[in-house]
Formats: sequence, C-alpha cells, structure tokens
Amino acid sequence: LRNAAPRRYAILAPNHFRENAKTAHGVIRYGTDETVAVVDPSCAGMRIRDAVPYLHSDAPIVASVAEALTFGPTALLIGTAPKGGRLPPSWRAEIAAAIAGGLEIVSGLHDMLADDPQFARAALEAGTKIWDVRKPPDVPIFSGAAYDVASPIVLAVGSDCAVGKMTVMLELSRAARSNGREATFVPTGQTGIMIAGWGIAVDRVIADFATGAAEQLVLAAAQHEPSCILVEGQGGINNPAYAPVTLALLFGAAPDALVLVADVRRRHIESFGTPILSYRHLIRAYESLCATVKPAQVVAIALNTHGVDEDAAHSEIARARTETGIFADDVVRFGPEALWAAVERSLVKRAPLRAEMAAG
Amino acid sequence: LRNAAPRRYAILAPNHFRENAKTAHGVIRYGTDETVAVVDPSCAGMRIRDAVPYLHSDAPIVASVAEALTFGPTALLIGTAPKGGRLPPSWRAEIAAAIAGGLEIVSGLHDMLADDPQFARAALEAGTKIWDVRKPPDVPIFSGAAYDVASPIVLAVGSDCAVGKMTVMLELSRAARSNGREATFVPTGQTGIMIAGWGIAVDRVIADFATGAAEQLVLAAAQHEPSCILVEGQGGINNPAYAPVTLALLFGAAPDALVLVADVRRRHIESFGTPILSYRHLIRAYESLCATVKPAQVVAIALNTHGVDEDAAHSEIARARTETGIFADDVVRFGPEALWAAVERSLVKRAPLRAEMAAG
Repeated sequence: LRNAAPRRYAILAPNHFRENAKTAHGVIRYGTDETVAVVDPSCAGMRIRDAVPYLHSDAPIVASVAEALTFGPTALLIGTAPKGGRLPPSWRAEIAAAIAGGLEIVSGLHDMLADDPQFARAALEAGTKIWDVRKPPDVPIFSGAAYDVASPIVLAVGSDCAVGKMTVMLELSRAARSNGREATFVPTGQTGIMIAGWGIAVDRVIADFATGAAEQLVLAAAQHEPSCILVEGQGGINNPAYAPVTLALLFGAAPDALVLVADVRRRHIESFGTPILSYRHLIRAYESLCATVKPAQVVAIALNTHGVDEDAAHSEIARARTETGIFADDVVRFGPEALWAAVERSLVKRAPLRAEMAAG
Repeated sequence: LRNAAPRRYAILAPNHFRENAKTAHGVIRYGTDETVAVVDPSCAGMRIRDAVPYLHSDAPIVASVAEALTFGPTALLIGTAPKGGRLPPSWRAEIAAAIAGGLEIVSGLHDMLADDPQFARAALEAGTKIWDVRKPPDVPIFSGAAYDVASPIVLAVGSDCAVGKMTVMLELSRAARSNGREATFVPTGQTGIMIAGWGIAVDRVIADFATGAAEQLVLAAAQHEPSCILVEGQGGINNPAYAPVTLALLFGAAPDALVLVADVRRRHIESFGTPILSYRHLIRAYESLCATVKPAQVVAIALNTHGVDEDAAHSEIARARTETGIFADDVVRFGPEALWAAVERSLVKRAPLRAEMAAG
C-alpha cells in the first residue's frame, strides 16, 4: 500500500515542536519511517525525548535544515499545520534548502507545494519529489463495492475532532499485530497518511466523492485480506464544520463495527460552543445512521483521559461503562490490549440493507 | 445576488430534450432568464410546449446552434448532464459555434469548459465568457455566522436525490411572492444556479468546506433581509453517496425549519438498493441531527406524486398526513399555496445549542 521505499525524516516544526506539532509527534511515535532530526530553533540542542517526554526518541533537535542534513535524512516532513493550512512565508527558505539538499518534501498543508513554481522547479533541478499528502487522487463516486469486502471493517467515530481517533486505531492495530492478527490501519487524514505512507485525506476530496474516497481506501486495504481493517475516523457527527466528512466515512468505509472515541475533558465542540453529546446520545446518533444503510454497532469506547489524574481516569472509564454497558478504556494510558480484545470479540461481518429485505 | 445582466438562452440538449434534460426543463420552467431556442435535432421544428407539454413556452426547437443564433440568444446553456458530467465529444463543434457567435457559455458539467484550451482561446478571441456553474469559489470553513441571520431559513430535505427538492423550493418561493413576502431562493446545485443566476454547487466543494459553502450562500441571501430564505436541498440522509452533502446543508445552512420532500413511487435509494426510510423515520433522522447543533423541525411534507393518478395522489397525501401529523401536499400537482401557508405559519427563528445552555 505504501507509495515509496522507507524514508528517513527530518521534521520541520519551527517554534512549534513542543506544543503544537500533532503531525510531528504522530509520525515520531507511530510512523513506520525513521525520524533522524527535528528542525526547531526554539529547542535546538535537545533530544526529542527531552522536549516531548512521551516520545521515545533520542534523535536531535537542530536549528536549521542545513544542520539536519548532516544526519542523513531522505525527506523533509512539514510537521505542523498552521491554522488554515497555509505555508508561512518564513518556512520557504528552509524548504528550498531541503530541496537543494536532495530531500523529498512531504507536506500536509492545504497549499500544494508541488504547485508552487519555485519549489517545483527546484525539485526538478535537484531530481527529487514533492509529496503533498492532502492532494486527493481522482476517485469514483461511491459504488457499494465496499459492502463486499470480506475482512471485518472497524471505524473510529468521535465526540469531536482531535480527540484521539487516529491514535486509538494505531494502538489497536499494534495490539492486533502483537496478538498475531494482521490488522491494516487505513489512514484518512494527513498525519495518518504520513505515518502509514499511503492513504487519502478525505476532507480534501470534493464533497460528492468523499464517500467514494473512503470506499477506495477500504478496497485497497482489503486486497491482502487482512484479518481486520481499522479505519481512522474524522470529525464528529455534530461538529457543524466537519460532520460531512464524518458521515462520508460512516457510509463509505462500510464499517461492521464502530469504536467510539471521546476526550473526557471536552465539554463543547471546538470553535462553536455546541455541546458534546453524551456517550449514549453519540452511540444512538452513529448507530441510527448506520442502521439506515449498513448496520454497525459501537463495540468499544476509547477514552482519552489525557490531562486528568489516574483516579479520575479510572472513574471516567467506569462511568462510561456504566452509562453504556459497553467496554471502555484508555488505550494510551493503560495499553490497547483490553480494548482490542473487546473489539475482536465483536467482529462479525454485516450485510448492507436492501429494500427487498426491508419489505419482507 | 446575480452575477450578470439577464441572459437570453439557447439551450443545447441534443437528442435529450424530451426525456433527459432536467436542467433545460428547470431553466425553462423556473428561470429568471428567457429561453429563445432549444437545440435538439431529434425534435427540431417543434415548439418547446409541443415536445414537453408541461413547459409553457412557444420558443422553437432547432437542429443546430447556427439556427439558434438567428433567434438572438446571448448565451448557450448546456441543458443536460450526461452520466458522470463529462462533455460528449460530439458537442464540441456546437459549443465552438456558439463561442464564435459571441455567446456566453453556461455549463454545469463536471468538465470545466473554461479550462479547455480550445474553448478558452476561442472565448478570448470572441470577447465572450464561459461560466462553469459547478466551479466552486474559495470559501472559508464554517464559522457559525449563519446562526446570526435574522431571516427565517427553510431547508428542503429529502428521501433521496432527484425527488423534487429544488422544484418544491422554487414553487414555495413563487407562492411566497404572490403572498407579498420577499422569499429568497438559495441555489445549491447546478440547475438551481442556472435558474437563479447565482449560487454554489455544494457537491463540488472540497468536503471540509462544504458546510462553509452552505453558510456563505445563506449569508449572501440574508444581505437584503428577505422575509424568508428557502434553501434548495441535496441528496438524502441515507443515500450513501450523497449524504455528506445533505449533512453539509443541514448544518451549514443553519435552518430554522425543514420541508421534507419525497417521491411517493420511490422504494429504494437509487443505485444502491438501500430502502427509502418511512416519513417518520426520515423526520426523526433529520430532526435528531439538527437537534444536536441548531434545532429545526419538519414543518411540511412536499410529496412528488408524478406518475400516479389523482386518486392515488390524494391517498398518498392523506397517508403522509396521518402517519406524521404534519401537513402534506404536492406543490406541482395542486399548487404551492397550501404548503406555503403551512410553512409560513411555522416560521420561528431558532438559536443554536450552546454548551452552557445544555449544562444548565
């Protein structure tokens, strides 16, 4: 499924690596490609693990791409997305230096770097490439072919954006593999794509084709007949800005089971103040939509208890179990084994609804 | 709101005008711009009303653009969308003839004619323009500004694609105007845009921005503070291919009230075989989604009884009323007055949900 040989990354995250570099952290933590250096003048001289303790990497943080080149990277990864996904002008010189140094550029910005005349010309001259991971391929309209995938499909659905859906699916795929199951992680957003080396940023696809994009991803993952397909979710069903992408995955990925992901501290939808729904309400919302096309149930709840102490985490997990009757856990804090076991127990292939059946 | 002075249309619909030219029929029936000729060799020599009895126009049908030019059009409208939205090669010569004749080209094809080098060059030479109505403008992410629109907003929601949502909203805006209310029709798809002379094809917007596009349309319509904003709907909440666009309108247009549109003969979602939901199920699905962001209720049901006899139409309408307790009618068959009255009675501005309120 990967689009290239393994990469050795230098990660560009100027002044943002410590606090605001979700993409960089994800790639360092879960990526199949090695990170050999991070470029951030604000913490140059530190090791990655010193700047961000939960990242277990001794790779150096340096002040410039020129320094990073001495560690032998093959690609420069843009490791943080400024609001709006535009390229800050101050980053241009560093990107140009990376291209001149022969590095591939891997970017998740909304601005397509391969369409930038200066970068495009420089890459051509240096004999290297620019991979805009958000650039959507041409995909067909949803066809229903995803209904015929033999492997069980699990989709992460959330209480909102940025609650940990990608992390949960990556942790579950690790747990599955350590239990001898071949689970394929399906990336649907920029960081997931950088981590896995393939995928489609479904949020960047033309709305009419978003469900089709989700379907194509599942079909690609199904080619090797894994024992399980774990699809990264996006958005949240009542986040007014991003719910259409959420729904595109809910129908397009044709899931057999759902894992609900929620941040225990989040009380309202980011940017809008709309309330976060209760676990039961979220489950009803997702299941009732699935029930109209292809039934799927929430089989486990993955809580993000980051930022609360361990006692509070245990009580939040207990509350979720009591309120819903569904197994809940925090896969980062307590490991993914138990949640994976709960998911695996529930894996059953389901058929889509057909009018003839409904009429009968 | 219009992007140009009134047009005089020649409509290109070769061999499709009678049976498969939804766009042409919509523009002739509801358009604010005049149609002076239709180009379709298969029924050349007839008047429009002879070929399609429900269209009350005496304009001629001719065999070629060259003939159409003699009736003084200012624009050529591509009046039918082949499957997939691609331009049939056999139409190129007619489009080129129209450009050479100085006509503006108005097209709703997925293929952007303005990006076609031959057409672009020819238009430049002829001093005319190409308007690809599906070409989306740059729009921001949904901001919530639509919540502050003072005019009541009504959105058509449907049991599926192509059941008559646009027609219902156009008929309601006619009825509103004939009752002295200034109702603004908001076009969200290609035919609606051609009819009204402005709008955004929301299905063509990048998924992340689809809700934002719906919001921008409502904000534009609100500028003149109409007594009512009537938003064309798209897709259906359980049509797996198009539901994301449906949801983008449901959240992005920030409706205060919904009109449910259904085709009484449709039993399953087109192309997928998924069952059409019952009226009550549809109402619950739409209202429960709205209830998580900004509450809105289905205040009227517009049935499309095309293809059943008048007795059956009456009994379908009675059934819908009985099953739901909501006023139902067919606005094409029986006129829009009664349904408009039902909608107008229910117009109340609603506020979006806020976490503080929900917590209280």
